[in-house]
Amino acid sequence: IPMSTDNLRIDAERLRTDIDQLASIGRREDQGIYRMAFSDGDMQARDWLMQRINDAGLSLYQDGAANIHARLGWREGVASVMAGSHIDTVPGAGHLDGALGVLCALEALRVLKEAGTGLKRPVEAIAFSDEEGRFGGLFGSQALAGQVTPGYLHSARDLNGVTLVDAMAAHGMDARAALHAQRTADSIHAYVELHIEQGPVLDRQGVSVGIVDAITGLFKWQATLTGTANHAGTTPMNMRTDAFQGLTEFATQIDRVLEEHGSPASVATIGRVELLPGAANVVPGQAVFSLDVRDTDASTLARLGESLQRTLAAIARRRGLMFEYEVLSEIAPVPCAPLVLDAVEQSVETLGIEATHINSGAAHDAQVIASIAPAGMIFVPSKEGRSHSAAEWTAWNDIEAGANVLLHTLQRLAG
Amino acid sequence: IPMSTDNLRIDAERLRTDIDQLASIGRREDQGIYRMAFSDGDMQARDWLMQRINDAGLSLYQDGAANIHARLGWREGVASVMAGSHIDTVPGAGHLDGALGVLCALEALRVLKEAGTGLKRPVEAIAFSDEEGRFGGLFGSQALAGQVTPGYLHSARDLNGVTLVDAMAAHGMDARAALHAQRTADSIHAYVELHIEQGPVLDRQGVSVGIVDAITGLFKWQATLTGTANHAGTTPMNMRTDAFQGLTEFATQIDRVLEEHGSPASVATIGRVELLPGAANVVPGQAVFSLDVRDTDASTLARLGESLQRTLAAIARRRGLMFEYEVLSEIAPVPCAPLVLDAVEQSVETLGIEATHINSGAAHDAQVIASIAPAGMIFVPSKEGRSHSAAEWTAWNDIEAGANVLLHTLQRLAG
Repeated sequence: IPMSTDNLRIDAERLRTDIDQLASIGRREDQGIYRMAFSDGDMQARDWLMQRINDAGLSLYQDGAANIHARLGWREGVASVMAGSHIDTVPGAGHLDGALGVLCALEALRVLKEAGTGLKRPVEAIAFSDEEGRFGGLFGSQALAGQVTPGYLHSARDLNGVTLVDAMAAHGMDARAALHAQRTADSIHAYVELHIEQGPVLDRQGVSVGIVDAITGLFKWQATLTGTANHAGTTPMNMRTDAFQGLTEFATQIDRVLEEHGSPASVATIGRVELLPGAANVVPGQAVFSLDVRDTDASTLARLGESLQRTLAAIARRRGLMFEYEVLSEIAPVPCAPLVLDAVEQSVETLGIEATHINSGAAHDAQVIASIAPAGMIFVPSKEGRSHSAAEWTAWNDIEAGANVLLHTLQRLAG
Repeated sequence: IPMSTDNLRIDAERLRTDIDQLASIGRREDQGIYRMAFSDGDMQARDWLMQRINDAGLSLYQDGAANIHARLGWREGVASVMAGSHIDTVPGAGHLDGALGVLCALEALRVLKEAGTGLKRPVEAIAFSDEEGRFGGLFGSQALAGQVTPGYLHSARDLNGVTLVDAMAAHGMDARAALHAQRTADSIHAYVELHIEQGPVLDRQGVSVGIVDAITGLFKWQATLTGTANHAGTTPMNMRTDAFQGLTEFATQIDRVLEEHGSPASVATIGRVELLPGAANVVPGQAVFSLDVRDTDASTLARLGESLQRTLAAIARRRGLMFEYEVLSEIAPVPCAPLVLDAVEQSVETLGIEATHINSGAAHDAQVIASIAPAGMIFVPSKEGRSHSAAEWTAWNDIEAGANVLLHTLQRLAG
């Protein structure tokens, strides 16, 4: 790469204008942003984004899953370098989750176009459909990776029972076309996603950019301990089989299990608990709870699963409780591709930006695209780790740093 | 007491017929018994009971709180010996809770009447109104003890919003008359209540009769630990303030606190837990839970309260959680009167029945009457501690043993 291209920088004012304009779409006073997939807010945002792509003189393409592509130097048969994220949101969202990755990619394409430097590969900025899960989540990236099935299209519906098919048809789109949105592996050279961290690590460390090594995998259980519901006044302590006491013993063992069988990246959470019958004056006969465990390494996750199961079974046996669990979901961890990691590291070095290595604890389109192409991610800090909240915030200098790292990464991968 | 009266026994067949007949009133197929206070089922049961009292040639009296009295040898100005319980039920109840105490008292009066032995004092069998709490609970005994206020009569309503006043008026009764149901302390020599244990102790020990030393007092808290809700994937373990982890640490300390500051009678229960926001993938920001603590000694209860509060405060401080609690209810423990305890013990000895001392962990009319008269209780076993359930069951020989102890206790107290 010649010296001159090292000096490329994003246009901070232009990026900021885009962020502000998109943030105003679907915003409800004091309640955050409502751009759930294929809602009116999402459709307005799509129209706005397509207009911005046209304004920039980039080629516009929308695939069968309604993913919006901005393309620079597109040539059929030449693998592209792709960057993006999503512009749909959860209800009451902040202005950066997803949107920042799409707008920074778009800005990078504008700068690369203006710079006129010859790139070997086409570059694409992409906004994936329904990442946040009105109808299940990661829909657009799964369609691109060929993972959407006719069965999914048939059954996908939102919390109100509206089907994906109807929601897309209401805007003149045919959901079945998602089955034809698949990209072949050799059509994507690399995928890069810039995203807010959605956790507190970069903010606590005061570092602008996180170089993502891996996207954590997870397993999620619903477990049930069953003892006997008894009158809280008439049942002596030594005649109880209190399901909640079994759960609390298990909960206090979680740190030990993570230390013995996990890695520094391991996390485990009990986020939901229901006691039955659930009355103040009845010893809990049943405790139903969720267990969410994440790590970046598949074998570590497997070891943690075995150990947690053994721990729970031993506690249940000792306390005379019945124990069962159901696996609600399982997602394999995804290591980021060395091709992308190297390009991000070199860009960080070129730009002299303070960066650190980090893992992604949340799910992203990047982990789906990783199944068909080398993929990686760039994180910028989230103030106090806030996410899925109107209070989501990232300092402007961090956004600018991240956007420039993305720009340089794309330039390296495509150059 | 002359030798002959030691040979008095209840008529087992007659008692069993009464139990079976009353059990059939308000029963719903496979769902247990529905005789909530002043419901149709309760009114039918009242009519049946009054007929049985008349059939026995006992005097019938109904006071302003609709408590039904059967009286033997009633003389105005002479303190009576009273025995009873209640015939109203919770929804889906068993056939013994309350009913057994009323029917055994009635049978005892019949036997005493037939024996014709001269008793110094009048004897009363009483069925108290709304013990189970359709409108608040312990209504009849509180009226007798002068604890019902005009304010309570004004505000008492059931879960469907039906007022006590309307429910009684529908059957031609004036709830305000309950204000005139008060008995003076010198009009009751002693009160004895036979009841199923509603706990597993006698059943586990295989003992027919429990001599109740005290009715436990309690305090009930609703406590809240507040930390920070965070993404379960993106928040490292050491950057969390997980409210549920604070609760589990507290829950594991309960046994220690009971051992250090409680008595063998102490029990403590966390029966209700709510985590907020309560999603599998969010670290709990708040844990709201109930704490129900019981003991037979007021100063022990106070010590337990202080220690549990200190324990919770220390855990909250160390973990960076906020901690608050609200006292939902507080009931003072009631020791049984030596007068009644002695009479029960002597009766057990006379009858050669295997008995043990026990405390009542549940609330009973006896603890209300204890505020105006010497009161005590006799327990019979509950199979596996079952209560407030259609599966409630007590072996017939235990019922017969308890009924005979009640008969002899009344004879001693009145003789």
